[in-house]
Amino acid sequence: MTFTGRQVQLTAYPDGEVRPSDFRIVEVDVRKPGPGEVLVRNTWTSVDAGLRMRLREKGPDGYFPAFPLDAPMDQIKTVGEVVESHAAGFERGHTVWHASGWRDYSVVKASDQPLAGLGALRRLDVEAAPPQAYLGPLGGNGLTAYAGLFRVGELRDGDVVWVSAAAGAVGNLVAQMAKIRGHYVVGSAGSEEKVRDLLEVLGLDAAFNYKDGPLPELLRQAAPDGIDLYFDNVGGDHLRAALAALRPWGRVAMCGMISDYEAATPAPGPDNLFQAVANNLTLRGFRGSANVDLLDDMWRDVGGWLRDGRIRYRETVVEGLENAPEALARLMRGDTTGKTLVRIA
Amino acid sequence: MTFTGRQVQLTAYPDGEVRPSDFRIVEVDVRKPGPGEVLVRNTWTSVDAGLRMRLREKGPDGYFPAFPLDAPMDQIKTVGEVVESHAAGFERGHTVWHASGWRDYSVVKASDQPLAGLGALRRLDVEAAPPQAYLGPLGGNGLTAYAGLFRVGELRDGDVVWVSAAAGAVGNLVAQMAKIRGHYVVGSAGSEEKVRDLLEVLGLDAAFNYKDGPLPELLRQAAPDGIDLYFDNVGGDHLRAALAALRPWGRVAMCGMISDYEAATPAPGPDNLFQAVANNLTLRGFRGSANVDLLDDMWRDVGGWLRDGRIRYRETVVEGLENAPEALARLMRGDTTGKTLVRIA
Repeated sequence: MTFTGRQVQLTAYPDGEVRPSDFRIVEVDVRKPGPGEVLVRNTWTSVDAGLRMRLREKGPDGYFPAFPLDAPMDQIKTVGEVVESHAAGFERGHTVWHASGWRDYSVVKASDQPLAGLGALRRLDVEAAPPQAYLGPLGGNGLTAYAGLFRVGELRDGDVVWVSAAAGAVGNLVAQMAKIRGHYVVGSAGSEEKVRDLLEVLGLDAAFNYKDGPLPELLRQAAPDGIDLYFDNVGGDHLRAALAALRPWGRVAMCGMISDYEAATPAPGPDNLFQAVANNLTLRGFRGSANVDLLDDMWRDVGGWLRDGRIRYRETVVEGLENAPEALARLMRGDTTGKTLVRIA
Repeated sequence: MTFTGRQVQLTAYPDGEVRPSDFRIVEVDVRKPGPGEVLVRNTWTSVDAGLRMRLREKGPDGYFPAFPLDAPMDQIKTVGEVVESHAAGFERGHTVWHASGWRDYSVVKASDQPLAGLGALRRLDVEAAPPQAYLGPLGGNGLTAYAGLFRVGELRDGDVVWVSAAAGAVGNLVAQMAKIRGHYVVGSAGSEEKVRDLLEVLGLDAAFNYKDGPLPELLRQAAPDGIDLYFDNVGGDHLRAALAALRPWGRVAMCGMISDYEAATPAPGPDNLFQAVANNLTLRGFRGSANVDLLDDMWRDVGGWLRDGRIRYRETVVEGLENAPEALARLMRGDTTGKTLVRIA
């Protein structure tokens, strides 16, 4: 017996801003899971800025491939419940994550790798946290924040830390983790409301709206003696301002460059990279998924901070699979806070 | 008794290319050394691309300050012989290095720091190598190459290495050290003659003239499977080509950006920095002088390789202090090979 499911497909590569009209909802037959496979009824799916880069015919080398047109969208993190299992270790009713997202039913093959990638089918502990947290602070975002701050950024005692897109899913976690460790933390975001939240709710030491003036000046007011670690979610003029403000032996954890994702042609890089030579700076790009060996450490630490209320988990929930493209458009416009999620059912 | 010496002074900041007419030779009184000081008769002084950045009213933050006009030029590495000493550990006839360069006599204060900076007065072992080698392979250039390749660039087994400006004082050493360690090494330079030298004399695995075509294509021919470590002396389009060619977990040792030193306004950075995110790349800027703790290791290793003939030491010697500005102009035009030196007497 087969039955019918729905999935989001891309029908055209958007030219600038993400348009929901470049997507469609398709009804498809859902096949029976074969040996080693499970059928999952998806409940939550993830919306990330990085998806924007895959809405191009040719994305950056070495990154996830572009989404093909008129086909299922793969490698999008999703959470759901097992409906039928033919894979050892998975039973009907288990909550799992996998990467066959933006559809309501997925047939997923269980990995036989002991340390499979972040996208591999994995059972989740829903006693510890609600299922959708595994798409946010306990998922790829959490791992990216955790690995980026502690491993890639080599957070050191006394570091002054600047986090851009600090109201976003990753930045929000980075800023809170740096505060937990006792650092002076500056956050930037794109609205007064977000800035207020960073200051009043998260308790950051300084925060600013990057639209309020020249970035170098805003950053100087927030961190008059300079910074030691910049967690970069934005690239472009933000990275340029950071290079000018970084003190000797400073570091940049390069997590993403949202300023560039919708540009038709890539923007030029910062014109002050020589600062890295002059001040012995390290700029390190990274992907959360390259740090999957830290997943258990992250679950222990971030899970604990969530339970203790030391990390506040922000989410913007969009209802209905059919609204996933609109959720991405809102995220790219800066119109979401924290993790952007789609509730499928 | 005082006597007269000569020094080079800058009279105007050049607008584009270095012009000897922006300098003058001045006769000055040389004062007697006081307690803790020595008088040095200089024999060799150093010409480095980095000096170009100090011929600007406002140089990069955190780097050496601009040279003041109509004043002695300080912080230029120089070798000479002690003529008169009032400092413990230094005697008449000792060969030393110090940083009061581009003049024929210097009065230098001995440092009382155990691990003083590279510019501090230091006695040199002229049994081990000729004096001018301490301005090249056994001096700041050698330390920059050694620290950049092994510490900053974290050279790893099997790395494919690209060195730009490989015919230059630092690049030449880096390329040879990477060959000694058994790596596949690509060198680039700006003339056919330099390229031939890299291939035939230094035995690099591949070399190209960057003026011969689009850099990404030239690099692809030289290293068809990509590179793991890029030693950057150039910046600009060279760094861009490297980012596109670096394999996952690749590294860039950012040593200098000669492509930018004569520009009136800084050139934009590479438009493909996102490659660092996609491929977990590390870009690390550094200054040789920040690695002075490696000086003894460098002397041991590079000194040994020089004696064994495994490192060939290139130098371009310009005769006469008065020709130091012309030597710098030649270096910036790409018209020197290896270390550019001025023989003072």
